[in-house]
This record gives sequence, C-alpha cells and structure tokens, in this order.
Amino acid sequence: MSYKSDIEIAREAKKRPIQEIGAKLEIPDAELLPFGHDKAKVSQAFIDSVQDREDGKLILVTAINPTPAGEGKTTTTVGLGDGLNRIGKKTAICIREASLGPNFGMKGGAAGGGYAQVVPMEDMNLHFTGDFHAITSAHNLLAAMIDNHIYWGNELSIDERRVTWRRVVDLNDRALRDVVTSLGGVANGFPRQTGFDITVASEVMAILCLSKNLADLQSRLGDIIVAYTRDRDPITCRDIGADGAMTVLLNDAMLPNLVQTLENNPAFVHGGPFANIAHGCNSLIATKTALKLADYVVTEAGFGADLGAEKFMNIKCRKGGLSPSCVVLVATVRAMKMNGGVAKADLGVENVEAVEAGCPNLGRHIENVKSFGVPVVVAINHFVTDTDAEVQAVKDYVAQHGSEAILCQHWAKGSEGTEALATRVAEIADAGAANFAPLYDDDQSLFDKIETIAKRIYRADEVLADKKIRDQLKAWEEAGYGNLPVCMAKTQYSFSTDPNLRGAPTGHSVPIREVRLSAGAGFVVVICGEIMTMPGLPSKPAALSIGLDAQGDIQGLF
Amino acid sequence: MSYKSDIEIAREAKKRPIQEIGAKLEIPDAELLPFGHDKAKVSQAFIDSVQDREDGKLILVTAINPTPAGEGKTTTTVGLGDGLNRIGKKTAICIREASLGPNFGMKGGAAGGGYAQVVPMEDMNLHFTGDFHAITSAHNLLAAMIDNHIYWGNELSIDERRVTWRRVVDLNDRALRDVVTSLGGVANGFPRQTGFDITVASEVMAILCLSKNLADLQSRLGDIIVAYTRDRDPITCRDIGADGAMTVLLNDAMLPNLVQTLENNPAFVHGGPFANIAHGCNSLIATKTALKLADYVVTEAGFGADLGAEKFMNIKCRKGGLSPSCVVLVATVRAMKMNGGVAKADLGVENVEAVEAGCPNLGRHIENVKSFGVPVVVAINHFVTDTDAEVQAVKDYVAQHGSEAILCQHWAKGSEGTEALATRVAEIADAGAANFAPLYDDDQSLFDKIETIAKRIYRADEVLADKKIRDQLKAWEEAGYGNLPVCMAKTQYSFSTDPNLRGAPTGHSVPIREVRLSAGAGFVVVICGEIMTMPGLPSKPAALSIGLDAQGDIQGLF
Repeated sequence: MSYKSDIEIAREAKKRPIQEIGAKLEIPDAELLPFGHDKAKVSQAFIDSVQDREDGKLILVTAINPTPAGEGKTTTTVGLGDGLNRIGKKTAICIREASLGPNFGMKGGAAGGGYAQVVPMEDMNLHFTGDFHAITSAHNLLAAMIDNHIYWGNELSIDERRVTWRRVVDLNDRALRDVVTSLGGVANGFPRQTGFDITVASEVMAILCLSKNLADLQSRLGDIIVAYTRDRDPITCRDIGADGAMTVLLNDAMLPNLVQTLENNPAFVHGGPFANIAHGCNSLIATKTALKLADYVVTEAGFGADLGAEKFMNIKCRKGGLSPSCVVLVATVRAMKMNGGVAKADLGVENVEAVEAGCPNLGRHIENVKSFGVPVVVAINHFVTDTDAEVQAVKDYVAQHGSEAILCQHWAKGSEGTEALATRVAEIADAGAANFAPLYDDDQSLFDKIETIAKRIYRADEVLADKKIRDQLKAWEEAGYGNLPVCMAKTQYSFSTDPNLRGAPTGHSVPIREVRLSAGAGFVVVICGEIMTMPGLPSKPAALSIGLDAQGDIQGLF
Repeated sequence: MSYKSDIEIAREAKKRPIQEIGAKLEIPDAELLPFGHDKAKVSQAFIDSVQDREDGKLILVTAINPTPAGEGKTTTTVGLGDGLNRIGKKTAICIREASLGPNFGMKGGAAGGGYAQVVPMEDMNLHFTGDFHAITSAHNLLAAMIDNHIYWGNELSIDERRVTWRRVVDLNDRALRDVVTSLGGVANGFPRQTGFDITVASEVMAILCLSKNLADLQSRLGDIIVAYTRDRDPITCRDIGADGAMTVLLNDAMLPNLVQTLENNPAFVHGGPFANIAHGCNSLIATKTALKLADYVVTEAGFGADLGAEKFMNIKCRKGGLSPSCVVLVATVRAMKMNGGVAKADLGVENVEAVEAGCPNLGRHIENVKSFGVPVVVAINHFVTDTDAEVQAVKDYVAQHGSEAILCQHWAKGSEGTEALATRVAEIADAGAANFAPLYDDDQSLFDKIETIAKRIYRADEVLADKKIRDQLKAWEEAGYGNLPVCMAKTQYSFSTDPNLRGAPTGHSVPIREVRLSAGAGFVVVICGEIMTMPGLPSKPAALSIGLDAQGDIQGLF
C-alpha cells in the first residue's frame, strides 16, 4: 500500500472560501481581513466586540519527550479539532506559525500530517500573512534607533559595549551570528560587536504572543531592556522612544490569522516564539479570541510536556488568565519503543517489552500534568506498523497510572480516527473537573521557581548555579523583576539536561549556564545547555532544490 | 482659508471594496487576491489570460528637475488618471510602492496629494502587500547561501574578498553600511567585510520590476553576479543555486497590486527600485497588465525627465517593448521661480521675470522628451499663490517652444481640475503621432551610450572617465554585456552633476566615478557623484512620534 505525501493531500484539499470558515464562528465577512481567498485576519473591532462573552473550554495538546520517531503533536491537535467538530462540538484550533528561514535549510513542514492538516501549506511555509516580517521590521527598527541615538550624541549615556539588543532576520544565516557594525568611519557610527538571531528568537515575538491587546503590546515593548549604561543602569525601548513606532509596525501582526483544516474547520495560526528561550505557544490573543468564538479550543505547546506544557501553564495561562479543562498527552508506540532502548531502524519489529520499558517517560508526564490540577488523557497516535499488543501495552500502562489512553487514526482517516478521543475529551472538559493552578506563586524567589520546576517536573535532585548567576537573580529581584515566571531553556529530548538520557531519569542535576531577563515578555530565561538562536544552513540546503515547476507549483519546499 | 492635510483627506475617502475597483477593469472577483478589503493582487492566471489583448495607450508623467518647492509629479499622475476617467476614458494608473524604512526617519508620504491621492495611505507607507519584505527575504537568502557555500568547502572557489553581493534591510540603519561578518570562530564561517543596503537598492528589486513573467524573473535572478574568483571569473546566483528558491519567495510579490484613487479609479502600485542605481519605475508587469486592461495607462518615472524619463525610455520601454503615446511634463510656477533664482522663502511674491528666467529648464526637458519621438504636453500644477501673469508666462514660454502648457488644479479639485489636461492628452494619444525610439542602439559601445545621454540629454561637452573605468567597460563588452543599456546615477537637481547648477546649463563635464554591472537587471550603472544606498536616521527620527492614538489610528507617520 502506498501513501500520499502531506503536500499531495494538502493540494487535493477542497478548501472553502475563508469567509465560510469564519461564518462557522459567526465572524461577519466584513470583520475578516482576507489575504487571498484562504487566509484572513480577524479585525480588531470584532475582537473588541466579543470580549463580554463567556469563554469556551481550553484543551491543551502536549506530548512525551520527542524522539526521532516523531510523536505527531500538531497532527493530533488538528485531528482532535476535526474530531470535536465531527461530533457536533463547535471547535477551533490554535497553533503556531512556521518560521520561514529553516524551510530553506531542511525541508519545510506541514501543519499536521496525513488527513489531519491545516492549509494552505505553501503560504504557511512562506510569507503567510506577513506577521514575522512585521516582527523583523519592528525588532530591527529598535536596533537602528539605538545606534542612531548613540550616533547623535548618546544623551542616555548608553555604554556601546553593553548594547544587548541584537538584530534579527528570518533566515538561517550563520555568518550573521557574530558581527562588527558601524565600520567605515565617523559617518557610520561607533563600531561595536553584536549579531543577529533568527526572528522567532526575538523578544518581540514573545511579547506579541503574550500581549492581551495593542496597549499591552506597547507597554511590554517599552519594557524591553536594550542596553546598559557604564553604571549598569538599564536602558529600555521606551527610553529610546521606539515603542510607539514598533506598535504601529505590529498593528496588523497582532490580529489572529484564520485558516482551515482539511475538513474545513476553523484554525487560528498565529505567532511562533522559540520554545527554549521563549515559551513556545501560539499567541494569547488568538487563543483568547478563539475561546470567545468556539465552545472548545484545541491548542498545543512546543516540545514535550516537561518544557511545553510547563511553560504553557506557568507562563501563558498565568499571564493570560487561562484555565485549561483537559490535557491530551500524545504518545506513539514507536516513541515508547525508542524510550525503551530500540534503535530507529528496528522500530518496525513488534517489541512489547520495549514499549513497556519506555512507558515510564509517558507515566511521568501524566503525573506532571496532573500536578497542575488538570485531567489528562493519552492519545496514542497510530502508526501503520503498530501491533495490537503494543497498543494494548500502552493502554494498560496508562490505566495503571490513573489515566486512559485512546488509539487515534487521524493521520490516515481524519476526524473519523479521533471520534473516540474527541468524545472523551469533551466529556472531561464538560465535567469541569479541572482545578488548574500554576506550579509556583509569583512571590516565590526566582531561584525557588527554578528549583520547583527542576524538582517537581524534571525530578532532579538539585539545581547547580554559581554565585554570579545567583547574584544576578537577586539583583533582578531587587530591581523589581522577582515576580516574573521563569522560562526554562534546556534540551527537549530528556527530562534531564542530557539529551541522551531517555525514559524517566532521577538523581540528576540541572546546571544553569546563563540567565537572561526578558523584561518585555515578562520572564527570566534560564539556560541549561547550549541554545542556538541563529541556525546555519546545511551543506546541501533545501533551497538548492526549491523552485517553481512548469505549472507554477512550488517544488522542493516540502 | 485652511486646507486639510493629505492624511485627513485620505481618511475621509469613501473607499469602495477592491472587487468593485477590479470590476472597472473587468477583473473577476475570483482573480483578485484580496489583502484586506481595499488592496488586492491580480492573479497570475488572469494575467496570463489577457495576453492576447491589444494594448491601451501609455502616458508617461515626468517633470522638470525637482526643486525644494516640489513639483507634484505623483499628484499629477493621479489627477490625470482621474481626469481621464472623468471624461469617460477607461484609465488605470501605475505608480511605485513606497519604501518602509525612510518613513521612520522623515515623515512618510502620501501617494499623490490633496484630492489626487491613492489610498489606503497607511498601508502603502507600511507593509502594504509584503512585496518589499519578500524582496528582502530573497536577497538575503542568496547572501546566506553564498556564505554557506564558502563555509561548506567553497567548491566554486569564491574569493571571500570579492563577494559583491551585500545584504539588505528595509530600514534606515547607518550602522549596517559597513560590517564584518562571520566572527566568533570556525562554526560561523570566514570573516569578511561587507554591508547592508536598503531594500529598494537591491538588484532583486530592479529585476522584479523589469521581468516579463516568473520565468524571466528566475532567469534574471540567475544572472546576478554575486562574487568573483581569485582569477576574477564571475560567480552568479545560478552557480550558487539560489535562483529557484528566490523565485518561490517572489512568487506573490510578482503579482501587481491593485488599489484605488480617492475617486475610486483603479491604480496599480507595484515595485519601487531606486531611481539612481536603478531605473526608478514601477514594475513592467504592472504596466503591461494595466495596458491589457485599460484603454489609457498613466504612469510616472522617478526624479526629473533627465533621469526618470530617460531611463523609462531607454531601459523600461526598451526591455518591455513599450511605446509611450504621450508625455506629460509637470512644472510649477514656484519651481520655475526657483530655477530663476528665487529663494524658497520668497516664492509667495509674484515675480514673472523669475518665472521666465527659470523656464529654460522646462524648455530643455521638452526638447529632450521630443527627441524620443513622443509628443509632450506641459501640466502646470497649480499652487494657491500662483498669479495669472505667472501662469501665463509659463504658457507663453511653452507655446514658443512648440508645445502647450495646461493649468491643472487636481490638488484642490480632483479630476475636475484636470479635465482640460485629460482631454488634450487623450487627443494626442488617440492621434497616434508618437514615433518612439530609444536614444541609442543596443550595439553601440557602453561608453558611446553614456556619451549619448550626457551630450543629448544633459547637454554636457564631455564625459570624463579614467582608464580603469574605460577598461572595465571594455571588459564587460568582451564578456558579452556590451548590448546592455546604461543606468545613470547622478544628482536629480540639475542637468549637470552639480546639484546647485539649476536652469539649463551647458559646457559642463560629466565625471564618472564608478561603474557597476547589474547583470540580472540587465544594465550597467554609471555613477557620477556620491550615491547613498543605505540612508541613516536623523537626530529626531519620525519614529519618535509615531504611534497609535486612543482610537487606534496611526499618528505621526504622515
């Protein structure tokens, strides 16, 4: 049996005009700002008009630690959204936008897969509605204004050596990681060493995704710390005077984008912050808008539940006043096997023992999610080589750990394959059993917050931080930033900081390499390991084979 | 009497849905790709479907040498378009898109002015339909791929010192003019000195604006010379393998953008190359598409006729197979006075003598335009302080020089103010008296082409070029580039290379400082003077006062 590729399926999609999709959420045509016939932004006026409505129920899709086998988190998000719509529940999906740059390195990806996808795939892998370009512009305007301020007399006494605000580009370009600017003489300013990150790593991206509205956006942009004086006094974006102009540049980018699933159900695709140095969720405004328009909103968080769900709960839900009703934890038989020690090449062979050996990774994520007070159900994302015995092994394990696992076949069958999951998720959400609370309080010390996550989520014995890091955290507390949540940046492949330590490790340590203050986004980034904020292109980048064919269709991007 | 500002008038515009504007050109709704309710791109399928139609008549609006008094070229383009529609002629306007960056330095501008504007003004000063962002992405992808090629073994033997392809950003950022990249060690590549230009200076912009279709676009992108080997052999974009991916990034940007005038007439706003190192006209594809859809197309060229019209004729018309039916030369009484020696502060005082003294600048432009075989009519763009005697002086001068001047009041009255001009322009175009030919042949030597322009348009005695420059031109001829047109980059304020030499100077020399080959765009750039390809921000940039007001309206941008 041969299968169609994601792009083949996506191109066969019978897309409906975006106004019809909006109508499913009762968005009037005039309040949809179309981008072509299959994409639209929801107008600010309409968003304002629905603020008094009650919220729908929020369902988070998260996953076990990712393995090279792939877990299918977005696919399950889309499949569950379609499944809920199939059983008559008015449901919207909220996912992140894709970054343009990496698609020219490795092949770009679908939003979902098989018969559980969001379309139009081409646009979503390219410029889409221009949000990331707007973020790039706003970020770099601030950078230009900082250098311009120094150039014209430096009234704020910025220490050129302590300008922390870099520039961004939505491309993989290693040559820009570390540069010296303002060479060429007096007319070009004061030479200094700086660099570029990829746009999704911009604090502006994180801010856009955490802002409640345009006023909140401008306020947060203003709070960004861009540099320090010789006396280490922070200089903010507001001091530079760039917050207003940046808000104007982001005026349209703040509006959620509406597209559709292959089954013509509404999907909001908006924002895409890094899941390491930022919180890795789609925009708060998209999620909150969807909650006003739909009875059920299915969203997802980056990486596995130890990073993604933790940040979703402790950062996004905390800041946005969100309260999830149910969590769906995606697992696959293949990933369980890899956690159980099987090599990727051997995944096609039935191995119930390995599945059982790998399940503790899943078990710990279940426990962790429950510790936030939210009911959890496991979705087993079916792969063709899975055997009944293997699937049953996962179900049995989950049942023993106080949850339930439901087999899903949305990749092959679309919503038909998630009816059972959707029915159960709706029951759980409707029962209202969730009693959500973040894991730590605002008024705990920053180090306490880090320890709480490390011990309760990662199950580490200790957090290792030298005096410099502890002093920095204390200094930020004294400067009034102690009430911020922390944003952990560690490997996504393990509960620990060692990517090779699969399963459910204990007894490990979490060494902190660096801490950074994202004062605008409103969190302290805790870096445990190497974090790359500007990828490079591979030796044979995908760009080499990307082009238009004779029919004008895009080739090589997928 | 007090006047409304351009933005006040623009905001009061009774815009019609863009589908209605498209319908005036018989573009079906399905073939318009909307961006919001007031902007759209025309689909490739529709463009393809109209190729067999006859062309409408092409009217170029150009001007005298710009003075600080302002001549109102775009305003007249819009006013004439509305005037032609008013008298029952099916007419479309074609103008350039605005660059985003400079709007955050000096205040952004309207497209037109008073009651002769194109809207929506805000969008056109910001991201519009994302074309410039796409150009930025395509340009910088090529840059990343060059450095990536060197990083992974440099199979093409690129000399790192001879990489000529810089990067671009659509911002005024002097700190990026001259930079060193790839610092930080082995993982970041080979350090080298390079820099950034503003996006409108990108050769990709010029290429997009001169390409007949996507295949032509890809071919031209492939021809870009990006570097040289140690042996001075050129390395092209095609060698790097970036042309296909760049074409994909520019796939939508190649589609013309449709907007509307204040009088709800169709306006194509597409492309915006520099008018010095490039040819300074809107895209060929927009102009050619408009000619298929309308009976009359009014377009404009950058700067005064010595630069803009010359390049329009010798570059755009030559490459695109266009043949203008009539040229409208815009002049103002105030600009004539300044050419006649009056200071800007004294322009409000009647001074017929100064008007007469300044008219030779206008007279020479008339002669020059006629030398292309195209009939010319002068539009006197009326300003409130103009006296009847001053206007009459211009009319008399023009009549004595074998043309006619018509007073226009579109700024204050919209199309009512251009009825007379529109009527005359239509008569001239319909009479079919034009017998267009470019000023030089493809097979003349590059230096001959430069001399032809310098002597016949600038009325210089000689072209000064040292041996290095003459050798370079010869080398390009030997390499097969001798058949290209030349693109002059000199001051726009004078026929000469001295910006202070107003009027109609003779006996001057044209010194060539540098020549550059734009092999993709298909011209040789001849630089006579300082050309800034990356502006800086002023000490009090407009960005400082740009923001959203309580109603969500943009303040400070205009």
